[in-house]
Amino acid sequence: MSVQTAIAALETVLGDRLSRSKSDLALHGQNEAHFDVVLPDAVAYPETTQEVSEIVRICAKHVCPVVAWGTGTSLEGHALAIRGGITVDMTHMNKVLEVNTADMDVRIQPGVTRHALNEDLRATGLFFPVDPGADASLGGMAATRASGTTAVRYGTMRDNVLGLEVVLADGRIIRTGTRARKSSAGYDLTGLFVGSEGTLGLITELTLRLQGQPQAIGAAVCAFETVDNAVDAVIATIQLGIPMARIELLDAASVAAVNAHGDLGLPEWPHLLVEFHGSDAGVAEDAETFKEVVAEHGGQGFDWAAKAEDRNKLWRVRHDAYYAITKTRPGHTALVTDMCVPISQLATAIKETQADIAQSGLDGPILGHVGDGNFHAILMIDPNSASDLDAAKDLSHRMAERALALGGTVTGEHGVGMGKLGYMEAEHGAAWPVMGSIKRALDPDSIMNPGKMVDQN
Amino acid sequence: MSVQTAIAALETVLGDRLSRSKSDLALHGQNEAHFDVVLPDAVAYPETTQEVSEIVRICAKHVCPVVAWGTGTSLEGHALAIRGGITVDMTHMNKVLEVNTADMDVRIQPGVTRHALNEDLRATGLFFPVDPGADASLGGMAATRASGTTAVRYGTMRDNVLGLEVVLADGRIIRTGTRARKSSAGYDLTGLFVGSEGTLGLITELTLRLQGQPQAIGAAVCAFETVDNAVDAVIATIQLGIPMARIELLDAASVAAVNAHGDLGLPEWPHLLVEFHGSDAGVAEDAETFKEVVAEHGGQGFDWAAKAEDRNKLWRVRHDAYYAITKTRPGHTALVTDMCVPISQLATAIKETQADIAQSGLDGPILGHVGDGNFHAILMIDPNSASDLDAAKDLSHRMAERALALGGTVTGEHGVGMGKLGYMEAEHGAAWPVMGSIKRALDPDSIMNPGKMVDQN
Repeated sequence: MSVQTAIAALETVLGDRLSRSKSDLALHGQNEAHFDVVLPDAVAYPETTQEVSEIVRICAKHVCPVVAWGTGTSLEGHALAIRGGITVDMTHMNKVLEVNTADMDVRIQPGVTRHALNEDLRATGLFFPVDPGADASLGGMAATRASGTTAVRYGTMRDNVLGLEVVLADGRIIRTGTRARKSSAGYDLTGLFVGSEGTLGLITELTLRLQGQPQAIGAAVCAFETVDNAVDAVIATIQLGIPMARIELLDAASVAAVNAHGDLGLPEWPHLLVEFHGSDAGVAEDAETFKEVVAEHGGQGFDWAAKAEDRNKLWRVRHDAYYAITKTRPGHTALVTDMCVPISQLATAIKETQADIAQSGLDGPILGHVGDGNFHAILMIDPNSASDLDAAKDLSHRMAERALALGGTVTGEHGVGMGKLGYMEAEHGAAWPVMGSIKRALDPDSIMNPGKMVDQN
Repeated sequence: MSVQTAIAALETVLGDRLSRSKSDLALHGQNEAHFDVVLPDAVAYPETTQEVSEIVRICAKHVCPVVAWGTGTSLEGHALAIRGGITVDMTHMNKVLEVNTADMDVRIQPGVTRHALNEDLRATGLFFPVDPGADASLGGMAATRASGTTAVRYGTMRDNVLGLEVVLADGRIIRTGTRARKSSAGYDLTGLFVGSEGTLGLITELTLRLQGQPQAIGAAVCAFETVDNAVDAVIATIQLGIPMARIELLDAASVAAVNAHGDLGLPEWPHLLVEFHGSDAGVAEDAETFKEVVAEHGGQGFDWAAKAEDRNKLWRVRHDAYYAITKTRPGHTALVTDMCVPISQLATAIKETQADIAQSGLDGPILGHVGDGNFHAILMIDPNSASDLDAAKDLSHRMAERALALGGTVTGEHGVGMGKLGYMEAEHGAAWPVMGSIKRALDPDSIMNPGKMVDQN
């Protein structure tokens, strides 16, 4: 069997850094979502780009699947080796290689997590802003085009990766981009590999843009009687050009959960949590303008936090929301949805989704990165109930169709993986086969994360 | 001859909107740079996407080259039909199709110019920020990944195109992206077509992000004894997180030219021109901080302009600089170079280039989008002097090599076209053949702007 031949060859290269232990296979066969466990044939732990290249060369020779693994925090089953083969765990490739403070960029290996990077940068006055919640690896975040709470100000991984080193499906090593801030020299290969989910190559190095730590940070929370009012307040704030660093929506059900969890006594209405970054005067002015906009849209209970301590308390509400929601139903697990629409359609999308959830009988509080038109329903299911899972999948399916009907996308930030593959044709239409053409051009034997992203027929 | 057969078929579709008049061929055989005139076989003036699709289908059938034309303002010969065939002039496709004020986006045809778009948007309070100087078509700006003075704040075309409609090399019509602000659904085809210079398909529609017109705008000018000091002041300002909307450098030779042209009496030192966008208080605070940074770096003559009238006068210095430079040598034309490096290398790059120009005997004032590490030398040549052109090409060649040696790119914003094709292998190394693989996958007969972008062997 060709996979076994590949494994024998890989063992000569990696020694005991090629693992076939049951625990290793089991660890890399799991996922944080609802997908069935599926084991790879072996797990490789490379330490250098050259080793990754050798791994892929061997796998290419034996037409053996290759799937990258960062921290395993994907919510769409990206890193599952659904056709077997070798899982390439990037944990050992976790070095910060070069920090350029004048240029505000950093070169790292793909296994560095965002917390580790920001810890490393602390003394420089710089930070990496993309915050998807989980302490994901930056290679994984690039591969899935992750974003999160700060995208409204700092963009997604698409906007924050300056360049990559990639091992292609035949083992060739390429570098994309330069350290220049912009370029018009040829096809944007960096942009092509960001979000390609390991289907075109393995990311072995990243050059990332950094940001200066803001002089001042301010945050506020406020409540609205309706989601419409909350979203309209956000639209008005954006149109005024007030640069929000984060703007998060918790719907009434989410607020109920955080109340129950933290004894906060917030009114059980939709809430906005906002954060501003800038100079002292700039942040104060932004907060004042935002407060006026909030009042114009019927917002209440405006609570301002300029001190780090108060701000941290306020953001703990948001950070703990997912945990609080899962705590409301002990023994249940969550199916987390992800849709993104033009912001003018956001209130409609949320209200239709809330009505749909109410009909389903499931609990499904909603959290949103509202400045981007992106939100998640946290659908709570009994893991032993097939009907719960079916109901959640039905809701997720209708959310995806709703996203497309409203001019949006089936996945704002969680990626395609296994969960959204079935919507790719509906979202992209005639453009989807173009992705297939690119895949076949760069990976003709489909060894790179096979079964994902493109047409499987 | 297959091109003639294609032309006959195109005439049946387009009637008199397929032109073979001498004047039309001559107009579309010229360029704004130093490249030789080369005539297309015919010029098509489509009015709809469907017509563009039919044009490409016919050309594909007869393996006839297809080259898009916007306003002809490219500086690298992008739109020259160097292998003959059909130039597709997008002038008639110049409609603004849909403005979404709540979502701050707009859908347009590719022939809309940036001035026309901003004129159309004036009453909405929104504007499109990318400003390459020329009143280029937005289709052309997307195709060449244009940027300009405002990229430091608002990004390049890469950052401001939400989605595209594209006619592929076989006539298929695809749509890339959605109106959602972000997505992680599949390969970033929008990013792939932006900057592909018509070699993968023809852009027939664009959805663009818009910005709110800032409440307040302020601008300032100041002089520095050395380029080092000026660049260091910019680096410090960026690190402080002061959001500059524009930050332009004029070297001493450029200042001398604008002095001679406008009788301005500026000290003949390197100058920075800066602009801030924001709230009244924010702009005032940014200006104050910038003034302090300038003083710390030995800057002098800080002159602040909050009033539109004064600001316009100040920016006229920058806008007229190219004109002023060309006026210093009557009867001469300009070869405009374009390099972009990490900002830590910018002062070195400029000083080495200045020394090189001084040795050459040519005049070559330098203008820079200094916040991006991007600058242009305006090399003045006698169009009848072969030695001037050779000297300018030598200087341009050394600038390209310098860009690569300093970790940058041979073209920050002018694109590849004909002028930079020879540097693609040096800049991209093993990644260049990957661009060729993508080209062959999407345009196997190489009919889309043939002779550009990828390996021609």
